[in-house]
Amino acid sequence: MADLVLTTYDWVPETPRGFVRDIRVRWALEEAGLPYRVESTPFRDRGAEHFSHHPFGQTPWLTDGDTSIFESGAILIYLGERSDALMPPDSLGRTEAVEWVFAALNSMEMATVPWSIFHFSGLTGDSPGWKFFDDWVKARLNHMEPVLADREWLAGSFSIADILMADVLRLVDRFDGLAAHPACRAYVARATARPAFIKAHADQMAHFAAAD
Amino acid sequence: MADLVLTTYDWVPETPRGFVRDIRVRWALEEAGLPYRVESTPFRDRGAEHFSHHPFGQTPWLTDGDTSIFESGAILIYLGERSDALMPPDSLGRTEAVEWVFAALNSMEMATVPWSIFHFSGLTGDSPGWKFFDDWVKARLNHMEPVLADREWLAGSFSIADILMADVLRLVDRFDGLAAHPACRAYVARATARPAFIKAHADQMAHFAAAD
Repeated sequence: MADLVLTTYDWVPETPRGFVRDIRVRWALEEAGLPYRVESTPFRDRGAEHFSHHPFGQTPWLTDGDTSIFESGAILIYLGERSDALMPPDSLGRTEAVEWVFAALNSMEMATVPWSIFHFSGLTGDSPGWKFFDDWVKARLNHMEPVLADREWLAGSFSIADILMADVLRLVDRFDGLAAHPACRAYVARATARPAFIKAHADQMAHFAAAD
Repeated sequence: MADLVLTTYDWVPETPRGFVRDIRVRWALEEAGLPYRVESTPFRDRGAEHFSHHPFGQTPWLTDGDTSIFESGAILIYLGERSDALMPPDSLGRTEAVEWVFAALNSMEMATVPWSIFHFSGLTGDSPGWKFFDDWVKARLNHMEPVLADREWLAGSFSIADILMADVLRLVDRFDGLAAHPACRAYVARATARPAFIKAHADQMAHFAAAD
């Protein structure tokens, strides 16, 4: 690989700090021990250069020489294909990791992000719609609970699937949404105790703090 | 590949017919010209066998000999790696297709599914939260509009990314949510005019009708 460059915002408000999705890429790069550097793009003024890398005007994106990739899931698949620290080596294990990558982003996060929006907006409790979204998250967690009670990591060994699932569940934990799901909570604790996560988190916090 | 078997529900209510996610897999298999057969699992009584294939108790799943895969995104990546009709042949094109697969499922569908839940629940209009979710979908469509005005398919040639993005946008179109985004609407029309989609849709409708 050429020089890996991760681009994230130059600054974000307090609330999302520690949860901006560049943390997923930082975490993967730290797990893999791949050299990289971090560049910034303006949070407030998103121009043509930004949209040329990310059509939705968000972050992160990763460049590897002439290749520029957006979407944290796609970036992690890309890195996973380049490091045995991020994907099982056998084809069955890889299929399983990819399957759990989509489970994290399309089955779990599709439920947890709307749920967290209700929390961030103070729309829980009696708000119409809240019960549906809260029940949806609980149903998903009920299904994850026996899976995570039964195994340390989702695809045999630690993989990009765990980076994504743990990061998705971390946002639920932020609002104490894992209290009734001890195996999910223990999984998040296990994943975020890894040195690569601790460094990725500290680096993201320092990156945004430096811009204050 | 061994014998490909797609499993979906034996029956679903009227509302989701034509939109059950097995259509994504049927569509991909038809595009690729891969032989497959369809099996049913009970919609009403989901047992241990069902959960052994799909931990969230949903459908579809695909088996290829001893390999069993859940998550429509993961199934399409698996098939994409096995047919040039579903992924560009070059590595840059494949990276681009994977990127748009995640854009469809994690940037677009994450916004459109909550939006459709408000519609299905009759919670649009003055409901708290509705404006946020409606604005979210509109912002995403505003970014997709110039992309789709500028190209026929997302990753150079037709790919699994188009199956997923078109299927995601099709649900928005169902509630007339593409009226202000003509390039998005034309893209859905273009994708769903393909013979492989027409057959997949007819086959899903016939499958569920046969159980009535």
